[in-house]
Amino acid sequence: RRGVPEAMGEFARIRALVAGLPTGDGVVVGPGDDAAVLRPSDGCDLVVTTDTFVEGRHFRRELSSPTEAGARFAAANLSDLAAMAARPRWAVLALVLPDTWSAAAAAAFEQSCAQALAADGAAVVGGNLSSGPVFAATLPLLGEVTRGAAWLRSGARPDDLGVVTGAPGSAAAFTALALWASPPSRDAVPAPLVERFVSPPSRVAFARALAATGAVHAAIDVSDGLPADLAHLTESSAVGAVLDAASLPADESLWAAARRLSAWAGQERGLLPAPERGVLEHLLLGPSDDYELLLAVDPARLDEASRCATSAGVPFTVVGRFTAELGLRLESGGIVSPLSPRGWDHFASPE
Amino acid sequence: RRGVPEAMGEFARIRALVAGLPTGDGVVVGPGDDAAVLRPSDGCDLVVTTDTFVEGRHFRRELSSPTEAGARFAAANLSDLAAMAARPRWAVLALVLPDTWSAAAAAAFEQSCAQALAADGAAVVGGNLSSGPVFAATLPLLGEVTRGAAWLRSGARPDDLGVVTGAPGSAAAFTALALWASPPSRDAVPAPLVERFVSPPSRVAFARALAATGAVHAAIDVSDGLPADLAHLTESSAVGAVLDAASLPADESLWAAARRLSAWAGQERGLLPAPERGVLEHLLLGPSDDYELLLAVDPARLDEASRCATSAGVPFTVVGRFTAELGLRLESGGIVSPLSPRGWDHFASPE
Repeated sequence: RRGVPEAMGEFARIRALVAGLPTGDGVVVGPGDDAAVLRPSDGCDLVVTTDTFVEGRHFRRELSSPTEAGARFAAANLSDLAAMAARPRWAVLALVLPDTWSAAAAAAFEQSCAQALAADGAAVVGGNLSSGPVFAATLPLLGEVTRGAAWLRSGARPDDLGVVTGAPGSAAAFTALALWASPPSRDAVPAPLVERFVSPPSRVAFARALAATGAVHAAIDVSDGLPADLAHLTESSAVGAVLDAASLPADESLWAAARRLSAWAGQERGLLPAPERGVLEHLLLGPSDDYELLLAVDPARLDEASRCATSAGVPFTVVGRFTAELGLRLESGGIVSPLSPRGWDHFASPE
Repeated sequence: RRGVPEAMGEFARIRALVAGLPTGDGVVVGPGDDAAVLRPSDGCDLVVTTDTFVEGRHFRRELSSPTEAGARFAAANLSDLAAMAARPRWAVLALVLPDTWSAAAAAAFEQSCAQALAADGAAVVGGNLSSGPVFAATLPLLGEVTRGAAWLRSGARPDDLGVVTGAPGSAAAFTALALWASPPSRDAVPAPLVERFVSPPSRVAFARALAATGAVHAAIDVSDGLPADLAHLTESSAVGAVLDAASLPADESLWAAARRLSAWAGQERGLLPAPERGVLEHLLLGPSDDYELLLAVDPARLDEASRCATSAGVPFTVVGRFTAELGLRLESGGIVSPLSPRGWDHFASPE
């Protein structure tokens, strides 16, 4: 516990942080001892994930307020539990704080993160605070799922349908537009893309409802980009997949982003392919950090799964299907071609 | 999962890391999915802690090799579970790696950490890897304890004996001697102090054996320094305590450190009080990061507890007693005076 800023000790901070938030169930001993003591539910497996946000890598102060970054950080971790169909229960927040973060900014990050966790039922039960030269937050997050019922990456079968929630690629579009400006700015980013980036919707409740239908054979969260995460899932399941380019979800805000990037690239000529459809596919199929779900759905139960999504208000789009033939392929304009896990653009352009 | 160095993905790293180490019991899904799936034991509480090591704050490359830093990092986390009398089970390793760390150096840190965890029964079940401008490691560590049996800070009673394991202050002595040199060096540090710093003994097995005796009413790990952690324990328990200066454990290596610091301070005059006994108390009662235990022991069961320590080969020293009167006091040379939680020297010198 060395290196703790003395202005406010870590236990005092955690106490302030959890004030006003619901006390978690199953918390025998919360913040203030050497460790938290928690009481797991009978008949459940424990699901454990941890993600880290480093300032300048995972968020930028000029593009996200501390409150927004805290909410997105919680979403990144909650998304991993959604992808296991787990119920979030307890979290520990480990922060490294540099001098450039005021106490108020750090508190805003922490509060926002804790509120987003609480909205999905998880309580902050402890923390760790260090000083350091860069802001870095790590969130061990624990959830529960009925024994043996966790969604895994390994369960996809040939002929399962590939389904995504939301609009993967939105984070890439936000980032590409915001970083084009100098200094980086979100002024030119369509409002829906800003909203999805700074406040990604949680898929936790939907995943739990969907798990009850038994329609899902495998799941992963889309935080690397659709082809990369599809590759992880197909490799774990020993299957292949074909994505249908025309069915990839792209709303008006993503088209607007593609038009804008296309025009800017035209002005600087050669940086991006000019055709808007090409730019759009670059966004949809490149690296993107979206916290959406990619699911392998039993085709016999698609209707049931779709009704579940409709009633939860979650965009739910069939984007392809799994195959016995290994590897990733993209079907676009009637032509099927190999798809790189690194995305459409990398594979298409000779390197 | 953005910002992962591409040379070796995080799952490949974790697979390499756990290769050759015992697979943990109760690991339903290990590294390679969105989250780990673990099966808790029936009738147990879950004990969760997390500590962070930041390079330059918690360790220095010139004073600790990556292998040594990894072992000490594991010890810092294991110590929190020892202080709860918990059995370590599962860990997740979150690393932020700068360009200044070679892949080999990072792997040495990780391997050493995982080996130290495995020695106490904990398996690494997942990880997270980010790039960033400074090395920072965070270790969520999960343990188990029979329901309701965790040692807490809040159980000390008046007339309980205050007992410490090992030799708190050793880390302060190591640091003071090593940082006196320019550049920092451990050449002038007595070997036993180096050994305790780079390879702190685990108190996990001893704590579990001692818990079975029922002799311990409250526990905390000594990682802030004896008075600071005693203050945490007494405040949680609503009691006070008197430390007996003469009984504080100080072996020949700590006396040697005190003599050396005293002589050096004499050469630079005024930086530290010259009397060796004063320098020694400064080390024993100042901030120090020792990963030892401070226990409130039932006086009727001291003999039983001592036998347990002897059979475990753990130095076990009565250093004071708890009192109904609140606050910390130090008895030295027949005189009882108030003791600051920040340590003897801070309180003694007017500020």
